[in-house]
Amino acid sequence: MKIITLTTDFGDTDWFVGAMKGVILNIQPRVVIVDITHGIPAGDIRAGAFALAASWQYFPRKSIHLAVVDPGVGSPRPAIAVQTRDSIFVGPDNGLLSWALRNEPVQGIRRLENEELFLHPVSRTFHGRDVFAPVAARLSKGMSFNNLGPEQKEFVQLPWPKPRRTGNQAEGEVLYIDRFGNAITNLDEALLDGLDQAACRIFLRGKSVAPLQHFYQEVPTGRAIGLVSSSGFLEIAINEGSAAKALKLKIGDPISVHA
Amino acid sequence: MKIITLTTDFGDTDWFVGAMKGVILNIQPRVVIVDITHGIPAGDIRAGAFALAASWQYFPRKSIHLAVVDPGVGSPRPAIAVQTRDSIFVGPDNGLLSWALRNEPVQGIRRLENEELFLHPVSRTFHGRDVFAPVAARLSKGMSFNNLGPEQKEFVQLPWPKPRRTGNQAEGEVLYIDRFGNAITNLDEALLDGLDQAACRIFLRGKSVAPLQHFYQEVPTGRAIGLVSSSGFLEIAINEGSAAKALKLKIGDPISVHA
Amino acid sequence: MKIITLTTDFGDTDWFVGAMKGVILNIQPRVVIVDITHGIPAGDIRAGAFALAASWQYFPRKSIHLAVVDPGVGSPRPAIAVQTRDSIFVGPDNGLLSWALRNEPVQGIRRLENEELFLHPVSRTFHGRDVFAPVAARLSKGMSFNNLGPEQKEFVQLPWPKPRRTGNQAEGEVLYIDRFGNAITNLDEALLDGLDQAACRIFLRGKSVAPLQHFYQEVPTGRAIGLVSSSGFLEIAINEGSAAKALKLKIGDPISVHA
Repeated sequence: MKIITLTTDFGDTDWFVGAMKGVILNIQPRVVIVDITHGIPAGDIRAGAFALAASWQYFPRKSIHLAVVDPGVGSPRPAIAVQTRDSIFVGPDNGLLSWALRNEPVQGIRRLENEELFLHPVSRTFHGRDVFAPVAARLSKGMSFNNLGPEQKEFVQLPWPKPRRTGNQAEGEVLYIDRFGNAITNLDEALLDGLDQAACRIFLRGKSVAPLQHFYQEVPTGRAIGLVSSSGFLEIAINEGSAAKALKLKIGDPISVHA
Repeated sequence: MKIITLTTDFGDTDWFVGAMKGVILNIQPRVVIVDITHGIPAGDIRAGAFALAASWQYFPRKSIHLAVVDPGVGSPRPAIAVQTRDSIFVGPDNGLLSWALRNEPVQGIRRLENEELFLHPVSRTFHGRDVFAPVAARLSKGMSFNNLGPEQKEFVQLPWPKPRRTGNQAEGEVLYIDRFGNAITNLDEALLDGLDQAACRIFLRGKSVAPLQHFYQEVPTGRAIGLVSSSGFLEIAINEGSAAKALKLKIGDPISVHA
Repeated sequence: MKIITLTTDFGDTDWFVGAMKGVILNIQPRVVIVDITHGIPAGDIRAGAFALAASWQYFPRKSIHLAVVDPGVGSPRPAIAVQTRDSIFVGPDNGLLSWALRNEPVQGIRRLENEELFLHPVSRTFHGRDVFAPVAARLSKGMSFNNLGPEQKEFVQLPWPKPRRTGNQAEGEVLYIDRFGNAITNLDEALLDGLDQAACRIFLRGKSVAPLQHFYQEVPTGRAIGLVSSSGFLEIAINEGSAAKALKLKIGDPISVHA
């Protein structure tokens, strides 16, 4: 069994994802295709990068992770595949893959330029179907990675906003807001290490908004809480509510923790 | 072949469902995972219970039905698995499984406390990934039900609002509103038995709003109709419209039928 | 391996699609079920027809394409299956299948009237589960097409709005609006043939709104562009924006191209 995961901004109201799956199954009928999500906001490379980074490691080794959030489709922006020890990542070279690969040793990068692998005619607006799907399917079928096209030394890195720790204080920002309205930050567990967590408060725009605790129901319904989320980062949530709405949180908003 | 069905409020805009599937496939690559829905409103245990109750019986015997609508995640609320003659149900012990099991003889209940079965470290906010997915995958692989943890005698029952029948009148309430705006009630077919259906009218807030008929197009476009829906309960609908919007119906609204 | 694709307006917030999959897997456990989309607007037969027409040909031969957008469910409207050289299409006979079959030689049409194939009792509101799913599953298992019911000579044709070409001008209309807000028209590539594409402008309500180019980023962010989309039709888009919103485009709006 071989797995191809899909992470896109194609949504689920049109036929785009279905067509990609048809192309994949035409080439490799024995594949297992798993949707990570197709609900990335249109063109939001950062959200796509975060979703992929938060999920790919739960899949079996040898999985192929195909991600397409690609506002530059049809332009000369390169498309790439990245080989790591255990997996292959495929997508446009626009930073989308870079957060998943932040801590992964890369064994090879190829530009997808071997046009024999594509679906023809190649459209200028839907490389998910015409370029990425057939390439992922052929890799899943065992085609050599080197067959994809010329080697490339680096790939586009999406800047990862660095959090700061000074004494009893850690500063970061909101990276992602999920469907529950939880705001996930770039403050990881290691950064909070050594802080007296029982004394910690989360600050937003200079005001203390929540304590640092462990699970949603530790605060009363409707109250804000900070906790280390399942992705390993500090998250601001409201027990049975939406922190994004109640605290008017947006991606990029600065957040700090004071012990 | 073994089937695991998924019913959650995780939505489809984030990576949560994808990560659960990755965990399952890592343990049991030969499973067939079927989404019932991930669109249960956040934390709405009743809606999740209804969706599971309306669908699980269409799946093959030996399916494992995993449901996660779990506002108490991370708190000491128990997680359970319930064995029936033909299926296993897995989820938090908060009533979510109880409507599916309303008429099912239960053969065993176990608390999910065997931590060896979990993904480590176990997060406090995403037991779908760290507890429920690996447990369902291991059961699907043939692990003994008794290995899950200690036996439990009962599970939390979500109250099922009892409808009433007095003479030519039946009274109930709205239990679920679907994507078409159809309002499904707790008035089942048996309760309407013996009523002169041709003479029946559906009443809402003391006013007759619709006749009782059989299929949507029996009334003109835009008109309200009561009918026994595919889930076996009286449903209030608008032909090519939304009854929820047009009649301002909400879950819990009282409904009656008079012959 | 046999594939059944699904194209419906059932949405993804309820259990409808899950129940259909359960029914299919009960009959044919070895099938691969692929969602094309369940996000067709409720009852929008044209949108369903377009989505199916734009995607089915990417699937392997011998696939079964099941489509259900069926406001007439439960009424005496026929349900049909259509055999082409390579595929079988199943759905209500309301035009939904007709755009996919526009250029396909039809080898046979059968009405789904063999009630032995259905799930009993057959509801009057959910033939997706009770009629279409079991029929598609049995076909996928190899049941003879002729076993479905009586032959039918024709099926309902959804009118395909004919575009016009006169000299340097082509006139058509908006057929579909996708999740990105791109407006896809009925002006196909052949119709634009011979026009001096570099000189072409797209006109909407008598005003020139966009040049005719090839990929989204050929115009600055926020600017309108016309291009031949991945479905082979002229599409009006906004680079990193929604043409439907910015240009207030609706299905049926007239569009012309002047060289």
